[in-house]
Amino acid sequence: MNKVNLQPLKGFRDFYPEQMKFRNFLFGKMREISKLFGYQEYEGPVLESLDLYGAKSGEELVKNQTFILKDRGGRRLALRPELTPTMARMVAAQRQKLTLPLRWFSLGPRWRYEQPQKGRFREFWQWDVDLIGFDSPEADAEVISLACELFKSVGLSSKEVVIKINNRRFLENKLVFVEIPRKKIPEVFRAIDKKEKMTQDGWEKYLKEIGLNDLQIRGLGEILKDKDFANESEELTELFSTLNDLGVSKYIEFDPMVVRGLDYYTGTVFEAKDRRGEFRTILGGGRYDNLLEIIGGQKIPGVGFAAGDAVLEEILKKFKKIPKLTPCSTKVLVTVFDESFYRNSLKITSQLRAKNIPTEIYLDSQTKLDKQLKYADKKGICWVVIIGPEEEKSGTVTVKNMEKGSQETIPQEKLEDYFNKQVCF
Amino acid sequence: MNKVNLQPLKGFRDFYPEQMKFRNFLFGKMREISKLFGYQEYEGPVLESLDLYGAKSGEELVKNQTFILKDRGGRRLALRPELTPTMARMVAAQRQKLTLPLRWFSLGPRWRYEQPQKGRFREFWQWDVDLIGFDSPEADAEVISLACELFKSVGLSSKEVVIKINNRRFLENKLVFVEIPRKKIPEVFRAIDKKEKMTQDGWEKYLKEIGLNDLQIRGLGEILKDKDFANESEELTELFSTLNDLGVSKYIEFDPMVVRGLDYYTGTVFEAKDRRGEFRTILGGGRYDNLLEIIGGQKIPGVGFAAGDAVLEEILKKFKKIPKLTPCSTKVLVTVFDESFYRNSLKITSQLRAKNIPTEIYLDSQTKLDKQLKYADKKGICWVVIIGPEEEKSGTVTVKNMEKGSQETIPQEKLEDYFNKQVCF
Repeated sequence: MNKVNLQPLKGFRDFYPEQMKFRNFLFGKMREISKLFGYQEYEGPVLESLDLYGAKSGEELVKNQTFILKDRGGRRLALRPELTPTMARMVAAQRQKLTLPLRWFSLGPRWRYEQPQKGRFREFWQWDVDLIGFDSPEADAEVISLACELFKSVGLSSKEVVIKINNRRFLENKLVFVEIPRKKIPEVFRAIDKKEKMTQDGWEKYLKEIGLNDLQIRGLGEILKDKDFANESEELTELFSTLNDLGVSKYIEFDPMVVRGLDYYTGTVFEAKDRRGEFRTILGGGRYDNLLEIIGGQKIPGVGFAAGDAVLEEILKKFKKIPKLTPCSTKVLVTVFDESFYRNSLKITSQLRAKNIPTEIYLDSQTKLDKQLKYADKKGICWVVIIGPEEEKSGTVTVKNMEKGSQETIPQEKLEDYFNKQVCF
Repeated sequence: MNKVNLQPLKGFRDFYPEQMKFRNFLFGKMREISKLFGYQEYEGPVLESLDLYGAKSGEELVKNQTFILKDRGGRRLALRPELTPTMARMVAAQRQKLTLPLRWFSLGPRWRYEQPQKGRFREFWQWDVDLIGFDSPEADAEVISLACELFKSVGLSSKEVVIKINNRRFLENKLVFVEIPRKKIPEVFRAIDKKEKMTQDGWEKYLKEIGLNDLQIRGLGEILKDKDFANESEELTELFSTLNDLGVSKYIEFDPMVVRGLDYYTGTVFEAKDRRGEFRTILGGGRYDNLLEIIGGQKIPGVGFAAGDAVLEEILKKFKKIPKLTPCSTKVLVTVFDESFYRNSLKITSQLRAKNIPTEIYLDSQTKLDKQLKYADKKGICWVVIIGPEEEKSGTVTVKNMEKGSQETIPQEKLEDYFNKQVCF
C-alpha cells in the first residue's frame, strides 16, 4: 500500500504521553472539584441522531459546524458538537427513576467543523457541569462558584480570569422597553453575541438588516453600555449576593454584552475570560428552563456550563501555572546484567510490582549496563536496580539513585521496604 | 419541533452515574495495572483518514464494519474501529524523538457497525496495551502477564478465565509442512478464525472453496487438534517459561486454533476467554512486527492487545465480582431549615468543601426537613447536617448518620474534624 500521512487530520490532535499527562492533570482537577460539590459523572454516546440538535443548539452550530454521517439506513447522524442535548435526552428518558435535583458532570470529546486556530480544534474535550431540577439564583450561583473553584485549584486568580454574567430574561425586558419587538429578540441576541468581532459600522448595518430602526439601535446601545442595570434585577442581585457568600465575588462581574450563542438559554448566562481578553472564551453556560420540555415533554429547569480543554491549556501556559509533570510513572528500572541473570531480574521485578511499586525490567539482556542506565535517565525513572554476580553471591542488590548518582547495596528481601520509603523526585 | 427519540442509537449506550461508576472502577483498575508495569497513557483522534486502515486491519473490519463519513473536501474519514493503526502512525510520526522501547496504553471509545448482541455494541471502549521496540518472547510474556494481573485485580481466577496462545509464524510453517501453499495462508488463517461459528461440513466446504484439497484439509485438521506442538517451537517454549517465572502460568494455555482476525499479526497471538466459553472474547492481541513499517517506513517490532469493556462487564456480573459501588460521592448533605437559615447552611457547606469534604446543600428552603432527609437517603449520602434556631443559638450543629439513624450535636468549629475522622458506609 501507499505510505499514509503520518499527521492527524486538520484540527485533530495526537496526545503523546507528555500531552496526556497534562490532560489527566487538568481533568483530574475537574473531577475533584465536581465531586467536592457532590456532582456525579455520566457519559453519553458520541453519535446522536441529527434531530436531537434540531431547534435548540442554534442554527450555525447545527448547519455549518457539525460533522454529519449517514448510517446504512440513510439516517443522518451527528458527531456531537456539544453534550447538553444528550444530557437532556438522558434525563427525559429516565425521568421517573431519577431523584431530582441531579448534579451531573461529564468529561469527553466533542467535534465542530470550524477553522482551527489558537485554542480552537475540530476535536476538543469539554467538561460539562449541570444542576437539574431547581430554578433559583442559588442554583445558578452553585455552578458558577464551582467554576471559580476550578480556577482556584489550578492557580488562576481573579486578577487573571473573570466570569462575566448577564440574564437573558432581564435583558429581553430591557430590549422590549426600548421597543424592540419580542419576536426579534433571538436575532438581536445572536447579533450581540457577534458584536465583539465587528466594527461599530458593521454592527449597526447588521442591526438594520435584521429590521431595527435608528431609535431601537440607539436604545440597544445604551443598554449594552450600562454596567449598573444588574441592580434593577432581583434575580441578578440575589445571584451576586449568593456568589459573595460563597467567597468567589472577586471572580465575578456583570456584563450586559454576554448573551451566549446557544438558543436554549432562558435566564442567567455567563462566560469566563482571561482579564486581558487575549484568549477565546474559557467556559460558557447558563440557565435552560425549557430544554428538557422541548426534548422530553416534561418541564424541568436546569443550569450548567461547558469548559473546553484547549483555551484553559493556553491560559495556564501563559500564566506559567502548569506544574512539572513527568509522563513516566515508573519508579524503578530493574536492569539485566546478562542473559543468565534475566530470571533473577524478572523475579525482583515481580516482587516489587507485588508491593505496588511501578517497575520496569530492561528487556534486552544483550544491551550493556551503561546503555540501560541511559534509558532510565531519558525516561525520567528515579531508581535503577542492578543484580550481577557479586550481588547474587551475597543475596543483595545495588540500588542507584538516578538524580543524585549515588548508589547503595541492600539485602534483596529489604528492597520493597526500601522503595516504599523513598519518594520519587 | 417534533419530540425526539429518547433512546440512544441502536448499539450505543447511555452511561448514567450508576453505569459510569462501574466504568470508572474498571478503567481505574486498568490504569493502575498499566502504571504498575511502567506503561504510559496516550490517546489519538477518534477520526482518521480511511487510508490508515487500508491493508492492515483486515478486509471485513474496514469494508463492512467501519463508520465512514466524508469531510467537506470529499475525503473519506473513519470513526476508528480500533486504535492500533493510530498508535503506529503516532510512533512513526515522532520516531526520532521517542526513546524505545515504548510502553504505552490507552482507554477510549471505538466504533464498529455490527449487529448488537450480548457483550457487543456499536460503540464500545477498549483498553489498548502495547510494548514497542523489542522482538522477543520476553516482551510477549510481559504484555500477556499484564493482562493476567488485570484479571487478578478484578478477582477473576484462572478457574474462570484463560488466555489461549498460539504463534502465527510457527503455525504457518506447520501448514506449509502439510503442503498448504504460503500464499493461501492469510485465507486459511481467516478460515481458522471463523471455524468455531461453523459446522464441520460447512468448514470443510469453505476450505475447498478457498482451494484446499482433501489431503491439505486432513493435514490442517490434524494440526488444529494437536495440543502439544507448542513444544516444537523454541519461541513458544520460551514464552511459556517466562510466563511461568512471572507467576501467571495457571491462566495460560496453548491453543492451535487461535489466529486472531487482524491481518497485521506476525508471531505470537493470544486471546482471553471465560473457561466455559459462554462469552465472547475478553481481549485479543499479538505481535505485529511489520505494522510500523507498512505505515511509517521504518521497521519497529511491537506486541500488544486490546480488551473491550462490555464482555468484561458481563463476566464480572456472571461471577459476581462487581463490588458495591455508590454513584454518589457526596459525604454530607447540609439541610436548610428555612429561608432565613440559608446563609448559615451555605457557610457550613463552604467550610466543609474547603476541607475537601464532598458536600451538597439542599437548594430549596421551602422543602420540609423530612423531605430533605429523604433525598439524602435516596442518593445514598452518609451524613446530614441540620442547623436550626436551637443550634444557631448554641453555636452547634446536629449531625445525623443516615445509615444508623443516630444523631449527635457538635460545636460548629469542630465539624470538619468530625467528618475527617468518619468513614462513609
